[in-house]
Amino acid sequence: MATKPKLHRKHDFPVDRTREHLEPGPIVMISSAYKGERNIMTLGWHMMLEYSVVGCYVWDANHSFELLRRSKQCVINVPTRELLDTVVRVGNVHGTEGDKFERFGLTALPASKVDAPLIGECYASFECKLADGSQIAKRGLFIWDVVKAHVASVANPKTLHYRGQGVFRLADGSVSRRRLFEPDRLE
Amino acid sequence: MATKPKLHRKHDFPVDRTREHLEPGPIVMISSAYKGERNIMTLGWHMMLEYSVVGCYVWDANHSFELLRRSKQCVINVPTRELLDTVVRVGNVHGTEGDKFERFGLTALPASKVDAPLIGECYASFECKLADGSQIAKRGLFIWDVVKAHVASVANPKTLHYRGQGVFRLADGSVSRRRLFEPDRLE
Repeated sequence: MATKPKLHRKHDFPVDRTREHLEPGPIVMISSAYKGERNIMTLGWHMMLEYSVVGCYVWDANHSFELLRRSKQCVINVPTRELLDTVVRVGNVHGTEGDKFERFGLTALPASKVDAPLIGECYASFECKLADGSQIAKRGLFIWDVVKAHVASVANPKTLHYRGQGVFRLADGSVSRRRLFEPDRLE
Repeated sequence: MATKPKLHRKHDFPVDRTREHLEPGPIVMISSAYKGERNIMTLGWHMMLEYSVVGCYVWDANHSFELLRRSKQCVINVPTRELLDTVVRVGNVHGTEGDKFERFGLTALPASKVDAPLIGECYASFECKLADGSQIAKRGLFIWDVVKAHVASVANPKTLHYRGQGVFRLADGSVSRRRLFEPDRLE
């Protein structure tokens, strides 16, 4: 067993800056809770739709699907490289096979505006409430309002970017081209 | 001026493996064409919705918006690190200010199923036709069927992952955890 990943000390973060952590396209872990049951799923199919609105595709065969649909809430958590094996394991066990927080040694921390827990070992967590359920039945698309954000101070989060077939592309460092931007395009 | 980026020799690629190149969340360049006009825009707000269906958010103030809406077609092109400055410049000039292929030295190559051109300097290009326009007016969400894919043999594409404020996270290498996957989850 690898070293236990540390808990991140997260701070309040402006919800309208959610894109700084989700637009790069990392694999995320979605936590959900409904009537005493909770679950975690891994998810790579998500996008920004407004500065504090995120779309997530969830297959209806996922155990989380009903928890998300019924609770109309979730937390989108962003893991980094030290959680790689956990991310994969969480994604390869069905939610009916026991509580994934206990099974994988993840820490459930209380959220402030939703019942789903934050994952302590993830450096960023976004509490979400359903904004638009009209595309769930048609295409599995949950459209979430980010209602509260928590982010730890990590300069270059080494996020994981899934490409299928068990392979993750790795983020490593960043580069600014701020000088090439028009001022009004720097939001 | 930096070295001119090379043209990639792309090969046919199965459309149902599009996720291998878009799920990691790279910034993309969308090319469009309508009635003799063509344009390119940079875009970071996209997601997989099925294995050969992609959602893209386009702001209605973008010059490309009408070209996309009217032509119901586009090409999603994936740039890598050597195109960084070009990606930024393309994103900071309005489509009314002249042809971006000429202005930025990009090579327009004919697509096979749509009128929008492929960008020769991008390592992957996905020809798309509109699958569902029902979310365009409501939330700027174009839902595309990938009808033809072209990908060059690049082992670890050094894709660019935008996080706002002029800063890009850089992809660098990849790692496999295939051994940890259940066989039926390895699509």
